[in-house]
Amino acid sequence: MRLLSGLLLVMLFFNVTAQNTENEIIQEIFNEALTDPTAYENLRYLCKNTKGRIAGTPEAAAAVEFTYQVMSRMELDSVFLQPVKVPRWDRGEDEEAVVISNRLGEKVVPVTALGMSVGTGKAGLSAKVIEVHNFEELATLGEENIRGKIVFYNRPMDPALINTFSAYGAAANQRTQGAVKASKFGATGVVVRSLTTALDDHPHTGVMRYDDSIPKIPAVAVSTNGAELLSTWLKQDPELNFYFRTTCKTYPDVTSFNVIGEIKGSEFPEEIITVGGHLDAWDNSEGAHDDGAGCVQAIEVLRLFKEIEIKPKRTIRAVMFMDEEIAQRGGKEYARQAEIKNEKHYFALESDRGGLQPRGFGISAPESRLGKILALKTYFEPYGIHEFTKGGSGADIGPLGNSGTPLCSFIPDKQRYFDYHHSPNDTFGQVNIRELQMGSAAIASLIYLIDKFDL
Amino acid sequence: MRLLSGLLLVMLFFNVTAQNTENEIIQEIFNEALTDPTAYENLRYLCKNTKGRIAGTPEAAAAVEFTYQVMSRMELDSVFLQPVKVPRWDRGEDEEAVVISNRLGEKVVPVTALGMSVGTGKAGLSAKVIEVHNFEELATLGEENIRGKIVFYNRPMDPALINTFSAYGAAANQRTQGAVKASKFGATGVVVRSLTTALDDHPHTGVMRYDDSIPKIPAVAVSTNGAELLSTWLKQDPELNFYFRTTCKTYPDVTSFNVIGEIKGSEFPEEIITVGGHLDAWDNSEGAHDDGAGCVQAIEVLRLFKEIEIKPKRTIRAVMFMDEEIAQRGGKEYARQAEIKNEKHYFALESDRGGLQPRGFGISAPESRLGKILALKTYFEPYGIHEFTKGGSGADIGPLGNSGTPLCSFIPDKQRYFDYHHSPNDTFGQVNIRELQMGSAAIASLIYLIDKFDL
Repeated sequence: MRLLSGLLLVMLFFNVTAQNTENEIIQEIFNEALTDPTAYENLRYLCKNTKGRIAGTPEAAAAVEFTYQVMSRMELDSVFLQPVKVPRWDRGEDEEAVVISNRLGEKVVPVTALGMSVGTGKAGLSAKVIEVHNFEELATLGEENIRGKIVFYNRPMDPALINTFSAYGAAANQRTQGAVKASKFGATGVVVRSLTTALDDHPHTGVMRYDDSIPKIPAVAVSTNGAELLSTWLKQDPELNFYFRTTCKTYPDVTSFNVIGEIKGSEFPEEIITVGGHLDAWDNSEGAHDDGAGCVQAIEVLRLFKEIEIKPKRTIRAVMFMDEEIAQRGGKEYARQAEIKNEKHYFALESDRGGLQPRGFGISAPESRLGKILALKTYFEPYGIHEFTKGGSGADIGPLGNSGTPLCSFIPDKQRYFDYHHSPNDTFGQVNIRELQMGSAAIASLIYLIDKFDL
Repeated sequence: MRLLSGLLLVMLFFNVTAQNTENEIIQEIFNEALTDPTAYENLRYLCKNTKGRIAGTPEAAAAVEFTYQVMSRMELDSVFLQPVKVPRWDRGEDEEAVVISNRLGEKVVPVTALGMSVGTGKAGLSAKVIEVHNFEELATLGEENIRGKIVFYNRPMDPALINTFSAYGAAANQRTQGAVKASKFGATGVVVRSLTTALDDHPHTGVMRYDDSIPKIPAVAVSTNGAELLSTWLKQDPELNFYFRTTCKTYPDVTSFNVIGEIKGSEFPEEIITVGGHLDAWDNSEGAHDDGAGCVQAIEVLRLFKEIEIKPKRTIRAVMFMDEEIAQRGGKEYARQAEIKNEKHYFALESDRGGLQPRGFGISAPESRLGKILALKTYFEPYGIHEFTKGGSGADIGPLGNSGTPLCSFIPDKQRYFDYHHSPNDTFGQVNIRELQMGSAAIASLIYLIDKFDL
C-alpha cells in the first residue's frame, strides 16, 4: 500500500512536471506573440504595399518577393519558391452600374465584377431585371420570362445561423454557378447580392465559373444595400432597367510561386508539418483577413519557434500558397510536388478564416490520432480556446489529405469575417493586433504539441 | 427489469422534451436577436445623438429622454425615472500639450484631462518631467527629485496578460491615485500613460480622485504613442519641459436619473431580476462599447421577451444606470431605493464590458444556487459560449449584492475592449452588429433560464 502510494506519487509527479513544462512553453509562446509586433507589421506591409494581389498580378509578385525576403532574413534552414502556373484575370477599368426606372428615377449602386467573369464591353449592358432567390425559382420562371433579361440573385445569407460559414455555403452557389444557370435560359447577365449579412455599400467579389458549352454572360456582385434598393424598386416598377459596365478579361496563365520557409526537424527531418495561408487576395481589397493574416501567422509560427528555441523533431514549413481564390493551383501543385518527391507530410494546418480571435481547431485525422489531438484542448482553455472539433481541411491543404495527411483548420471567431471577405472593407485597419497575435500563438502551440507528443 | 426500462424511457423522454423546449426557446431568442436591428439602431442613436453624455450634462439628459421614450413605446408594464444626484464635471475648452526640448525640438502630443481633475488654468502648466512606473519608484525618488516637476506615470498595461481586465487593474492606480501620490512630494501636475495595450494616438480618460488634505494638481492622460515619445525624448534630454493646458472644472451636483423599464412577473411579481448597463459615457467618446452597448442590450432583453412571448414568473427590469463613470451614484441609489421599498432582488446582471462577442458569465451566488447556475453552460455551448465562472459583479449592481442578491457579469471577449475604453475611439462604428446581438441573446437566454428554473 505504501509502495503503491509512493509509486503513484512519483507517477503523478512526473505527469504534473511534464504537463507543466508544456504549459510553460505554451505560455512562453503566447507571451512572445503578444509582445512582439512583427507579424502585425508584416501584415501592414502586405496590405498597404501589395493590395489587390490576385494571382498573376504584379502585386502578387510583390507579395511573393516580400514574404520571400522576410523569411530569408529569419535564418531559417531553407527558404524557397515553388513555381506554379496560375490564371490571370484582370478587372480592367472602373466598374459602374445604375438602376434606371422611368417612374422612380436613377440610382447608382456599387457593383464589382465576379472573378473570372467576362466583361460587358465598353458600352455596357442594359436590360430588364428578373429577381430570383434560388435555381428552383429560376427554372420555374423558365426561358419565356428570362430570355434577354438580367437575372438578379437576391438570396441573403441567413443571419440567424451562428455559423456564418454555413450561411455563406448556403448562399454561395448564386455567385459560383448563377451565370451558367441563368445563361441556359437566355439571360444576358447576372447581378448577385453580395455574400455578407452586413447591410452596407461594399460589393463582395469572389470566383464564378463558366461552362464552355453555355454562352458566357457577364456577372457582377452588388452591395447588400444596393440589392435591397434594386429589390424594392423592382416591386414598384418591374419594368425598370439595370445598366452595368465591366471591362474585365482573362489572359493566358502566367507563372507565380508558392513561398516556403522551413525549420528542419531534429529527429525526423523527413516528416513535414505544414502551416499555411494564401498569399493571393482579391483585387478589390487589401486582403487583410483573407488571407494576409494566415500568411503572416504561418511565418510567425517559425519566428516563435526560433525565438523560444523550440527545436521541433519534425520539419516545420510555413507555406504561402498562391492562387487560392481562383483555381487553388498553389495547393494542388504543393501536393503534386510532395507526391513527386515522395515527401512524408505528417500534419497540415491552414489559417484562412481571418485574423480574428482564436476559438479552436477543426481536425480530420485517422481515429487513432484524432482522439489524442482533440484531447489537447485542455492546454488551450486558459486562453479562451474551447472548440476542438472533428472535421478540418482547407482549399490549399485539401489536396494533401488525399495521401492521408491529417488536416487541420484554424478556427477563429466567425461573426465578423463576412463583413470583410472579398470586399474593399477587408483592410489592415480591420485586424486587431491582439486577435492576430492570439491566433498565431494558438497555431504555434498546437503544432508544438503535435510534434512534441508525436500525435 | 422491463418495468424499470419503461420507467427510465419515460423519464428520459420527459427530460429530453423539457431540455428541448428550453433549447428551442433559446434558439428563438438568438434567431430574433440576430434578425432584428432594433438594439443596434438604438445604439446608433445614443452614440451619434447623445455622445459625450457624462453624468449631469445636457447630453446625459438627452440619453435619459431617449431611452425613456424607447421603452415607453414598447408596451411594457412600467417605465419610470429614478432621480439621482450626480457630480457635474466639465472638460472646458480644448486641451493641449507639447513636449519641449531645447535640443530635440517641440512635439504636440494628444492628451485629455482625467475625469474630476482640476484644470491648469488658461495659461497652462510648464515644468520639467520625471518619469516613474509605480508608487515605489516615486517614493524612492522623494521630494528632492519631484518638487516642482510634472510626474509622468508610464507603466504600460501588460500585453502578455490574456485577461486584459487584469492588465487594466494592474495599471489603473496611476490614473486614479497618481495625482495624490505625486502631490505629496510636491509635484505640480501628472501625465499618465493611457490605459490600453494599443499603440495609437487616442488619449484615454477615466476618473481620478483627490484627497482634500493634499493640494489638488491637474492630471491628464497622454496617448500611448505620446507616452512612448515623451519617454524616448526624456532619455535623450532629461531637462526637457512638458507644457499642458486644461480648463476643466467641477460644478455642484445636479439631478439626473436612472431609467427603468419592466415586465411584471406572472407568478412572483415582487421578485425582481435586474439587467442593466450604464447610460453615462465619457465626454470624449460616443460611449458605444462603454456602455451604450450594455444599455441597448438591457432594453433588448425586454424586447426579446415580449416578441417571443416569454411570460417571466418574476419581474424583469432593464435599468440604465446613471453615473457609473465618476461616482457610481445611480447604482448606489438603485440599491438604496430597493432597501427603502423592501424590494426583493432575485438576480442582477450587468453588461459593462463592451458590445463584443459573448464568451460567458461570471456569477456570484450562494453555493446552493451557484452550482445550478454554472451548470446552465450546456445550453450556451452551441452558441460558442463556454466560460461560466465563479465570481461576478459590476460597479452598478455591486451595491445590490450587499443584501445578498446574486450578481452576474456578462463577459464578452476581452481582447479589443481597451482599444476603445474611455477614448475617442469608442465609436458606434467599432461595434459589430452580430456581436452586439449575440450578446443580447446570451443575456436574455440566461435570464430566461434562471427565472424558468427558479435558480
